Amino acid sequence: MKTSIGAKTLLFPTPVLMIGTYDQDGKPNLMNAAWGGICNSQPPSVGVSLRKATYSHGCIIARKAFTVGIACEARMTEADYIGMASGRNGNKFDATGLTPVRSELVDAPYAQEFPLVLECRLLHVFELGLHTQFIGEIVDVKADSDVLGDDGLPEILKIRPLIYDTGHKGYYGVGEFLGQAFSVGKALVS
Amino acid sequence: MKTSIGAKTLLFPTPVLMIGTYDQDGKPNLMNAAWGGICNSQPPSVGVSLRKATYSHGCIIARKAFTVGIACEARMTEADYIGMASGRNGNKFDATGLTPVRSELVDAPYAQEFPLVLECRLLHVFELGLHTQFIGEIVDVKADSDVLGDDGLPEILKIRPLIYDTGHKGYYGVGEFLGQAFSVGKALVS
Repeated sequence: MKTSIGAKTLLFPTPVLMIGTYDQDGKPNLMNAAWGGICNSQPPSVGVSLRKATYSHGCIIARKAFTVGIACEARMTEADYIGMASGRNGNKFDATGLTPVRSELVDAPYAQEFPLVLECRLLHVFELGLHTQFIGEIVDVKADSDVLGDDGLPEILKIRPLIYDTGHKGYYGVGEFLGQAFSVGKALVS
Repeated sequence: MKTSIGAKTLLFPTPVLMIGTYDQDGKPNLMNAAWGGICNSQPPSVGVSLRKATYSHGCIIARKAFTVGIACEARMTEADYIGMASGRNGNKFDATGLTPVRSELVDAPYAQEFPLVLECRLLHVFELGLHTQFIGEIVDVKADSDVLGDDGLPEILKIRPLIYDTGHKGYYGVGEFLGQAFSVGKALVS
């Protein structure tokens, strides 16, 4: 028997996404979003949910673009600061020392220091309630070469992405490899 | 300088979600979805993206409900099998030995063996391309009592959720606690 714990926004794991935007003055900004992920393969798309009160919300609508950087263990302090401060009151790149890079493909910046970044063109805006979900087409993915495997794809143990615990608001690392998908389940094929 | 690796659906980490539905004959089914997550807090909502070709797609539309179970390390083999087989050709509960439980709140089943489950009422259907995104209102969350902390909220290290690596299709565990959100970033507050 399971225990009812109420209608809560609990799901495990969630990512730590660094959403990059320009404001109306061209100032680069980052926000920290746990509520997002891939949502479509053709066209390749990512969804991120932001409250209307966030500074980034208006920036995405105005520029019709954003980037999604993957926060990593080595940048946990910066990622958390980005989730605490608002771009309305300052420049988070200056405060963290992160390096803004202008995307050549979409009208949005990203931080050089996060190892993987998705460059996104705004496709859809869905008003869900307190949050707005922005669906972006992934125009390109940029990666640091030292997180790529021999096959040219990123390796999770080289990225070392942060994992966010929505229950108790902790950051965790990725643990050990447990098994290969589309393989371990074959044990149950009769 | 970052390397371009193309417009790929890469994001780290992604969850391993067990989507529970009934088909038109009342047969319970589960599918394995990595593309989903919380997307709104009021009303509390979760989004999951499914290809139209999946058996579960039509079930969600017909019943206007689904559940989201969190796959855990101890059930990796079952979770992976659920991602390999189709409910069109058999009963995945029978094949895995998992126990179907009828939700008392929504018209969908879940597996007793996954430690946390979200019971969802269909709110929105967004056609994004190859995938359809289903937005469900989280009507309740049910948890095994042994994954709850003293405060009544689930603990990630007790759930031991699977982490899916979309790059190389591996399952990983959750690693060590690294820091507290809204706290470690204070080091950068000037």
